Parts: sequence; structure tokens; C-alpha cells
Amino acid sequence: MSPRRVTLLSDFGTADGYAATMAGVIAAAAPSAAIDHASHQIPAGDLLSAALTLSRYAFLYPEGSVHLVVVDPGVGTHRRAIAASVDGRYFVAPDNGVLTRVLSRGGPHELVELDAAIVGTGEPVSATFHGRDLFAPAAGRLARGEPLSELGSPVTDPVLLPLPEPLRADDRVTGEVIQVDRFGNLVTNVPGAWVTELGPAALIRVGRDPGAVVGRLRRTYADVAPGELVALIGSLGLLEISVRDGRADARLGAGREAPVEVTLQAPPGAPA
Amino acid sequence: MSPRRVTLLSDFGTADGYAATMAGVIAAAAPSAAIDHASHQIPAGDLLSAALTLSRYAFLYPEGSVHLVVVDPGVGTHRRAIAASVDGRYFVAPDNGVLTRVLSRGGPHELVELDAAIVGTGEPVSATFHGRDLFAPAAGRLARGEPLSELGSPVTDPVLLPLPEPLRADDRVTGEVIQVDRFGNLVTNVPGAWVTELGPAALIRVGRDPGAVVGRLRRTYADVAPGELVALIGSLGLLEISVRDGRADARLGAGREAPVEVTLQAPPGAPA
Amino acid sequence: MSPRRVTLLSDFGTADGYAATMAGVIAAAAPSAAIDHASHQIPAGDLLSAALTLSRYAFLYPEGSVHLVVVDPGVGTHRRAIAASVDGRYFVAPDNGVLTRVLSRGGPHELVELDAAIVGTGEPVSATFHGRDLFAPAAGRLARGEPLSELGSPVTDPVLLPLPEPLRADDRVTGEVIQVDRFGNLVTNVPGAWVTELGPAALIRVGRDPGAVVGRLRRTYADVAPGELVALIGSLGLLEISVRDGRADARLGAGREAPVEVTLQAPPGAPA
Repeated sequence: MSPRRVTLLSDFGTADGYAATMAGVIAAAAPSAAIDHASHQIPAGDLLSAALTLSRYAFLYPEGSVHLVVVDPGVGTHRRAIAASVDGRYFVAPDNGVLTRVLSRGGPHELVELDAAIVGTGEPVSATFHGRDLFAPAAGRLARGEPLSELGSPVTDPVLLPLPEPLRADDRVTGEVIQVDRFGNLVTNVPGAWVTELGPAALIRVGRDPGAVVGRLRRTYADVAPGELVALIGSLGLLEISVRDGRADARLGAGREAPVEVTLQAPPGAPA
Repeated sequence: MSPRRVTLLSDFGTADGYAATMAGVIAAAAPSAAIDHASHQIPAGDLLSAALTLSRYAFLYPEGSVHLVVVDPGVGTHRRAIAASVDGRYFVAPDNGVLTRVLSRGGPHELVELDAAIVGTGEPVSATFHGRDLFAPAAGRLARGEPLSELGSPVTDPVLLPLPEPLRADDRVTGEVIQVDRFGNLVTNVPGAWVTELGPAALIRVGRDPGAVVGRLRRTYADVAPGELVALIGSLGLLEISVRDGRADARLGAGREAPVEVTLQAPPGAPA
Repeated sequence: MSPRRVTLLSDFGTADGYAATMAGVIAAAAPSAAIDHASHQIPAGDLLSAALTLSRYAFLYPEGSVHLVVVDPGVGTHRRAIAASVDGRYFVAPDNGVLTRVLSRGGPHELVELDAAIVGTGEPVSATFHGRDLFAPAAGRLARGEPLSELGSPVTDPVLLPLPEPLRADDRVTGEVIQVDRFGNLVTNVPGAWVTELGPAALIRVGRDPGAVVGRLRRTYADVAPGELVALIGSLGLLEISVRDGRADARLGAGREAPVEVTLQAPPGAPA
């Protein structure tokens, strides 16, 4: 049988040894587990980033994989610790909304609040590092095949982040930038299908009114010249704004929460 | 049987391929080993950081794990290369003090100087990259089960770093900051138990005389308001200074070696 | 049997989840594969860096290993996707020259253009993330033992980068810096053997005419005092310029493409 995969996602960086600490706890609890550091470079405390990053890869891993997420600005407060099963994958995280996107996935769900008396290692749970004392032990238990239901009591009201929702009308779609990736691409929350449904004449703008005109939806980077702005449907099926061989964030001075508008109307000043 | 775990810790970064080189050498020597990059982000040549980071995770990994540490500013000088067994875990490193904290652990010890004629790959050992030519091959041999004693000759005098020691008197404990972590938390060398033994009235200060008053020891971040300084016992059992939802290093202008004082006396100017 | 190793090299960073996405796809395709993140810190689009980094570790991994390389500034253009077998290791990458150095290795070669209809997952291939939709699936197939020849059609004309070539005459060798590593060491393209063949009097200079005099070839860092420039033969067998316990790039103001000259002639102004 193949080993269970455990992925780790956090805002810990690696230099301090916190990430390796969690890996060691998992390795001790589940010696044959395959441990994969997804990332420890989430900006400190950035739940929205972590939620989006997690949603990119979680369901591409095989069923039975365990995804540990420790972005936990509320450690030491009364937030709960939870574990979930969604569509065959397991998740372990603080109950602070970091699982918002994966919990919106269809398919069978199960959700429990971790019970420190069951999950913990017998040592007192520290005030500052539940990743070591609670979350990694829980991930280790799931990785060695313990049922989710034995890690705590069922809950039905996980904290969910208020994700920005795109809006659509007959001739107009609005949304916003939800991620700026390492290449400066602006990932928006606008479904690519909404843009294509407006037809090839739809015009895309980014930024405060009236915003910068990006142009019409293209199929691929090669549809524009190097250095030009381009709007296309990215790998999540969402509208993305890029500069071919360049950075759209720098070009447009735009970041997360920048408004995005797709409209059938001609831009101001254009001939009617 | 579960595979042996090998962890890698270095100041190599990853972009140049030095870290992957060591992983490849280990994979070739021990094909079934599970290889885990603990961190390659130790500041260049920073032995104290590496020693502390290693000590966080080393003994949480299961027995039989092999911890490779290559922070090696003295490569190409006459420093020795060593391997150790401490409390069931193996360590491979330059003999420059980077193992100081793990060697202070109780339990059975064994220590050898690596013999290049035994450990090396048959290729000449380079002048600049013993990680590839000596340390990774040694880690690979341990990972495939070769006894430590066959890798070289016993030694009893490893280089130890002069770690700063905290001091205590009846009404006063002094120490210093030994790590600033990614969140700006100041980890000190003061045992948390020493602070609790002074009682709840003990007052914590950080920085040069008279230092900034942090306040009394708290149990958790939630005991202060967001943005406030807080002193608590961190995950290593040591006194830590933090800002809730903020950075203590920036707030206090304090870094490694900043003095820390815990005292029963009232601060200067306080009513008697 | 030991698991196939798959290494990942990219310029994706880790925070956005693109790297973990590729790992997840591979894990799903080849559940028992050992997945190793070599690096995701290649500077964005830097094919020369990626090619050199890959060549450091590729052939130290055991035979049968699969090396996935996704530095792909041309995604969405008409560049091909390829997979290769070189000296018993597999490579999967865009056909943009990133495999130039490993393809120059002797031993048996095999090279195919990936066929999206065979390799893909059944989902449409996105315009922006062939790492997920094409390269990782191909790596997964190789990792589970599918023959390279079944992934596409043979090709014989991979794109090769024009690597800078060193030149030699009887009393003079010239080359250039091809990498600045994390420690500020300047790795050149001059074979160390060429320098030793010039004899111990050969003098090394770096930078535009007349360049800074580094001195004669040394065996190891310890042959100079801390803080001094030193030229030695690095771990790739190439001439390297370093500062002992310091950074040669900062000292010399030199980076990639800086000229390097090794000559038997005395420096200008030296006594005859």
C-alpha cells in the first residue's frame, strides 16, 4: 500500500525550525508517511492567502492525503482547533477560516473539533505552538489511519472567511483581485466563463474608476506582444491580468482588492 | 519496516542546487530513505542559529533518524568532520559547534571523526563542498543502517560553542535574547520555571539599562490586548517576549544578545 | 523495490501553491514516488540559472530518478514540451534550453516531444500552467514506470542555450562568471584543469580590462587570510573566485558575465 501523504502549509518560514518540528512530530506518529512541505512562506497571519493557496493543490493530491495548515494568528486565544474530511482528503487547522475555500467543495464532509486530551502527546499544550502540540499530532494520527471521528466531537459551524463575491448583470461583471502571484499576475475572483459569456467585445478594466483598460479577453500570453497587458483565463478558471514577460502588479499599481470590471460598454471617450 | 528519515539543515538556500546535491547523494546511497529538507535558510555561517534550530526538532523525529547539518564557514580549513549518536538519533556535521545544543542532551552518546577514506565516494574531496563529498555520503551510510563506529575513529572533545548562560539570584534573573524568530518574537535563554519561581510580581525588562518594561509573566497572548507587549513561556520552555499580533523586535529595537532581566524590585521611579 | 524519486525545480516560489500543485499531481499519478523539492527559487524566467542548478544535482540522484524542471517564460507560446532520458535519469521540461547542460552529458539519450493528448489528464490544458497540466502528469507517468517513448514522438533538435565558452591559448585562458551563489562566490566557466596546466605562476583577474587581480590559484580557503580574495577550483571542477569569510561579488562589484582572465604575463606595471 502506498504511504499516506501529509502536506504542510504555514507562515513559519523554515529557518527557526518550527516547520521541521511539525514534520518530526508527524514522522514519529506515522513513520511511513510521506511528508511534503507545500509552503511555509505564507505572509504572516494572512488567512486569505493561505486559504487560496491550499485550494489550489488540496484536491489534486490523492484521496487519503492529509493537509496540515497552520496559519494561526489566534494561537493562545479561544479559537478552536479542527479537522475535516472533504471529498476524501483530510484537513487539520485552526478554526479561523483558513479552510473556507476547501470547505466550499461539494462531496461528503465531516468536521470535528480536536480534543487536546485525545490528540495531544501527553505533554502540556504550549501557549504558543499548537502546530507542534496539537495540529501535527492530529495530522500524524490521520496519516496512520485513525478515523477522523475519534479525534474529537463533531462540529457544524466552522469559521468561514467573508470571501469577496463577484457580481454579474446582463452587460457587466465586477469583481476584484484576490491574489498577486510571484510573477506579478493579478488573479481575480471573476469566473472566466462569465467573461466569455459576455462575448468577445467585452472590455476588461482594473483599478479605481475608471481604471486602466486591459483590453479584451485573450486565449494566451502569445496573443499580445512582450511587455503588453493581457487578460486571460488562468489555471483556476478565473480571470487573470498579466503583462507578457513582465509584472502586471507593477504596471498597474494594483494589488489584492483592486476592483475589476468587465463591460460591454465602450470606454469613456470611445466613438459610439 | 519504515524508511530511515534524513533531515537536511544548511545555510545554502536552494537556488544554487547545493541542497539538492546533498539530497541526491543521500538518495543514491540510501534509495529508500525519506529525505526531508528541514531548512536551508540559516543565515550564512550562523552557527548559533543553526544549533538552536536543530535542537528544536532533532529529538521529535523518531529514533534512527539522521540529521545532517552543514553550516560550515570553516570548509577548507582544518576543522574536523564528525558524526554522533545522541539518544537514538544520528547527527552528521562539521566539528564547529553546530551540534552544541544536541550534544548537551542526556542519554547515551557516541561520537566519531569522519574518515574521508571510508566515507567518501572514491572521488577526491573538494576544497569547497564537503556537504556533497563527505557529510551527505556519511548521512547516506547511516540511513542505510551502517554502524556509526565504522565511519571513523572515536573522539571525545567536540567543539562546543560558548552558549550564553542565564544567571539567577534570590530576587533577580538575568539572561539574553538568543533568537528572533520570523514573527519578531524574542526567544530568551531564561528558563520559564525560573520566572515562575520568582512569583507573579516579577517584572520583566528587555534592553540596556534600564531597558523597556514588558510587564509581568502572562500565560498566553490573549492575556493582553492586540498590539501590546507580552512575556510568556514559549514552546521551548524559555521566556519569550512578544507583541500580540505584532513584532517585538521592531517595537523594542532588540535583537540577539539583548539583555533580559526579571526582578522583584519595583522599576525605577515607582512608588516604594 | 525503492520508490522512484521525482525532483522539482522551478521559479514558482512556494507561497502561491503552484509548486505544491505539481507535487500533488505527481503524487496522484505515482502514489509511491518520493517527491523532493529541489528548489522553487530560481529567479523568474532565468533559464541559465536553472540549467546550471539542474546540472549540479541531476546525475547524483540514482538511476531512474525523474527531474521535473518548470522555468517556462514561454508558456502559452508555441514552444514544445519535452521529456528526455540521459544516462539513466529522466527529465521533463519546456523545450526552451533549460536542459542544455544535462543534454551535453555523454551516455545514451532519448528525447520526445510530449503529446498533450497522451500525457494530459483529460482536462483541457490551461494557457498558463503547463506545469500542472502537462509536465507534472508526464513526470508522474515516468515515476510509475511508463516508458519515455510512449509519452510522445521522438525529436532530435532540442533548443539549446548558447552557453558562454571559455577560450585558451598557450599563455592565457579567458572565460566569464556564470553564477553568483548565495555566498557571493563567483563560479566561472573556466575549467580548473586549464588553470593548473598554466602552472603555479598563472595570475587570475576578474572584471573589465584590466580587472581586479585575484592572485594565483590556491587549493583552499585556508590558504588566504579571512577577508582576502581567493581563486580556487570549486565543486564543479571550475575556477571560482571567493572572499574567505566574505562575498566576492560585493568586493569586486562583479556578477554573471563578468570577464575572467588567467595569464602567465605579469600584471601591468609589475617588474619584468
